Amino acid sequence: MSLKTEQSTRAQRSIALTSVREWEQGTVNQVQDYLAVEEPLEIRIGDVPVSVTMRTPGQDLELVAGFLFSEGIISGRAELKGLEAVATATAGNVVRAELEKQGSVVAQNLRRNFFAASSCGICGKATIDSLRVRGINAPNDDFKIAADLLCGLPEKLRESQAIFHRTGGLHAAAAFTSTGELLVEREDIGRHNAVDKVIGWALLNDHIPLSDCVLMVSGRGGFEIVQKALVAGVPVLASVSAPSSLAVQTARELGMTLVGFLRGRRFIVYSGEQRIC
Amino acid sequence: MSLKTEQSTRAQRSIALTSVREWEQGTVNQVQDYLAVEEPLEIRIGDVPVSVTMRTPGQDLELVAGFLFSEGIISGRAELKGLEAVATATAGNVVRAELEKQGSVVAQNLRRNFFAASSCGICGKATIDSLRVRGINAPNDDFKIAADLLCGLPEKLRESQAIFHRTGGLHAAAAFTSTGELLVEREDIGRHNAVDKVIGWALLNDHIPLSDCVLMVSGRGGFEIVQKALVAGVPVLASVSAPSSLAVQTARELGMTLVGFLRGRRFIVYSGEQRIC
Repeated sequence: MSLKTEQSTRAQRSIALTSVREWEQGTVNQVQDYLAVEEPLEIRIGDVPVSVTMRTPGQDLELVAGFLFSEGIISGRAELKGLEAVATATAGNVVRAELEKQGSVVAQNLRRNFFAASSCGICGKATIDSLRVRGINAPNDDFKIAADLLCGLPEKLRESQAIFHRTGGLHAAAAFTSTGELLVEREDIGRHNAVDKVIGWALLNDHIPLSDCVLMVSGRGGFEIVQKALVAGVPVLASVSAPSSLAVQTARELGMTLVGFLRGRRFIVYSGEQRIC
Repeated sequence: MSLKTEQSTRAQRSIALTSVREWEQGTVNQVQDYLAVEEPLEIRIGDVPVSVTMRTPGQDLELVAGFLFSEGIISGRAELKGLEAVATATAGNVVRAELEKQGSVVAQNLRRNFFAASSCGICGKATIDSLRVRGINAPNDDFKIAADLLCGLPEKLRESQAIFHRTGGLHAAAAFTSTGELLVEREDIGRHNAVDKVIGWALLNDHIPLSDCVLMVSGRGGFEIVQKALVAGVPVLASVSAPSSLAVQTARELGMTLVGFLRGRRFIVYSGEQRIC
């Protein structure tokens, strides 16, 4: 069996075609199937590799910009002096970022989350406190969205998921305005990466903070998704699925609206109901 | 709004009860909702913290044992000399492992994956090669499972998911025998953690390799899930959802059976069809 990656365009590089066996009611057929591509991406700051993440190729520069920002390694666009795919033997799987303050500052930042949490014990409360230490504030309280409009967002997200339709295997994240207009939609095999790509798009297009947006995600709303949304200044985070206890606690303590189980004409508001009208 | 964690039993510590607003067809109700608990867990080797993972409390020792084994930090039960929850101010969120070979060996192991991949470029092929470098072999080729029996596993998994039924927010992983008997089922907010808990259970109960089992997972089958299953010697990995390109490529090259979209009376076989009869 062969596994070929289409390489003619960036979008197609996200999809691989392969031959598989389909079993249905006792009958077996050989069929062609599209797979979501997963490949490692090495992130370098200057010449120093700082992370290897498994991701779906496409919008890699946005992914790295979003990762650096949402993880607190940079605090804004101005600190990002350069961003480029590195020409290696396996071209396209290494991205190099040049930062304003490189070196020791980088090392400190990478360790900061851990020490912030461990200095007062490992628990949810300490994890939330570490966000406050990073200077993350409550998002825009003037933003409102109509409940009816919110109910329409999952369908809009599905319609925009070009790759998911062919593979069934990708997570999506999208930013919508208060009138339901789609600003940007990104897909990835990893939930966090899809969110980082949206945030990276915003950072590179001078749209940070995302204070006039709903961030809609296809998967579950865990702590790390809430954290990334808060860093980007998102006032409303909506998901079709369940949030975790720590996601809810974090959204409540830092004043973000958190919506879950957004399906059909029903949803659950876990925090910040004043933004839904 | 309050967020209370039930603490009377270990199972209940996985669930938190909270008050939320339910919006349905324009009507808003205040209701009580169960959330899957998410809390950080610090893993220490001796006195050295090596990882902080966000997980659902419960079976923490299994999670740590499974993590150490599936990530290649230990190669078997015999190397694990001790495993205990550490009494801290936030009791229950720190687990300490004592290894046969501690210190520099640990540091080398933690870095090994990265260097193995980067020595020949960052790409899917190098990632698969790094598994071979770790000495991971093809799983048991004598194991067979009937297609009809395979079709019944998702329902058995759902029935065993005690916490999911109350929260809708957890991933599950389970090991079944070739006759469909459930050996062990574990749940977690993180897909990888659910798999690590199953593998940790197997390690601590002298059931490694899991060479006579199907590993069934509730989520997508990405590379890291395939890698963990291969390390544990699992011959058949089945998922209700889509695998990634790298998951398929890895399963093919290392000889594991990979089944996806296992729903109702239909499934897709991506590799190793000889084990399905």
